[in-house]
Amino acid sequence: MKLGRLNHIGVATPSIAESIRYYRDVMGAKITHKPFDLEAQGVKVCFVDTPGADGTHGTQIELIEPLGPESPIANFLKTNPSGGQHHVCYEVEDIADARKWFEEMGKRILGPTRIGAHGTPIFFLHPKDMMGQLTEIMETPKEGTHWSN
Amino acid sequence: MKLGRLNHIGVATPSIAESIRYYRDVMGAKITHKPFDLEAQGVKVCFVDTPGADGTHGTQIELIEPLGPESPIANFLKTNPSGGQHHVCYEVEDIADARKWFEEMGKRILGPTRIGAHGTPIFFLHPKDMMGQLTEIMETPKEGTHWSN
Repeated sequence: MKLGRLNHIGVATPSIAESIRYYRDVMGAKITHKPFDLEAQGVKVCFVDTPGADGTHGTQIELIEPLGPESPIANFLKTNPSGGQHHVCYEVEDIADARKWFEEMGKRILGPTRIGAHGTPIFFLHPKDMMGQLTEIMETPKEGTHWSN
Repeated sequence: MKLGRLNHIGVATPSIAESIRYYRDVMGAKITHKPFDLEAQGVKVCFVDTPGADGTHGTQIELIEPLGPESPIANFLKTNPSGGQHHVCYEVEDIADARKWFEEMGKRILGPTRIGAHGTPIFFLHPKDMMGQLTEIMETPKEGTHWSN
């Protein structure tokens, strides 16, 4: 497998509204995306863009807020009430190949491959097998794919 | 202030040697940089490149290993023995302007502005003032600057 782009870093927050104000007013980001619910994952999500090199798109920040007390993010916020870095997400060309690659290495994959916040297939790997980092693997959106988030 | 590039994410590790094997053999990164000591900060550092969009340089991973038991990273590893996400680092055009910007907002700045791992001036902001994220602010290397790491 070849390392792909760091698509986004996932940042847990108790309030996406507060985080949007923070990234806009403190960090100077231009907010262009709207929050939306990813009910299957129990989270509300909003992407914040950061600039890449030479005018390209950079790594995004994926803000994630729990939709309810059962959300997997709710536990994270119990330990980190003001939020914090939650996961990293790398792109791969082919999600099935990547899943096989990690499976054959004995890495624990958390649940089935499913559609993620960018509308492409994703899966998560257990942080204990990934040097302490909850790691999301995401198929790169194909050219021409509608990718508004 | 305008949000700059996400230069790197800082990842604490109990062993840079092990992390390099992990990013090379598990994640498929091409390792091109060598580890070096940043004695003033009490850490050994090694950068791992990730690809950006359209062939540009992407956000780097800054691996950080404690140089001794007094290192600020040593405490982080007590809580997270296998390592994990430690900080985020954004670029700014002018470090003095950025420092003033955050100071005027009442954000706690951790120590003086100093020279960071990329040889340009940096400072850190308290995670409790930055929605749970230890945040490094780094002046973008000037064109023509020797920037080997």
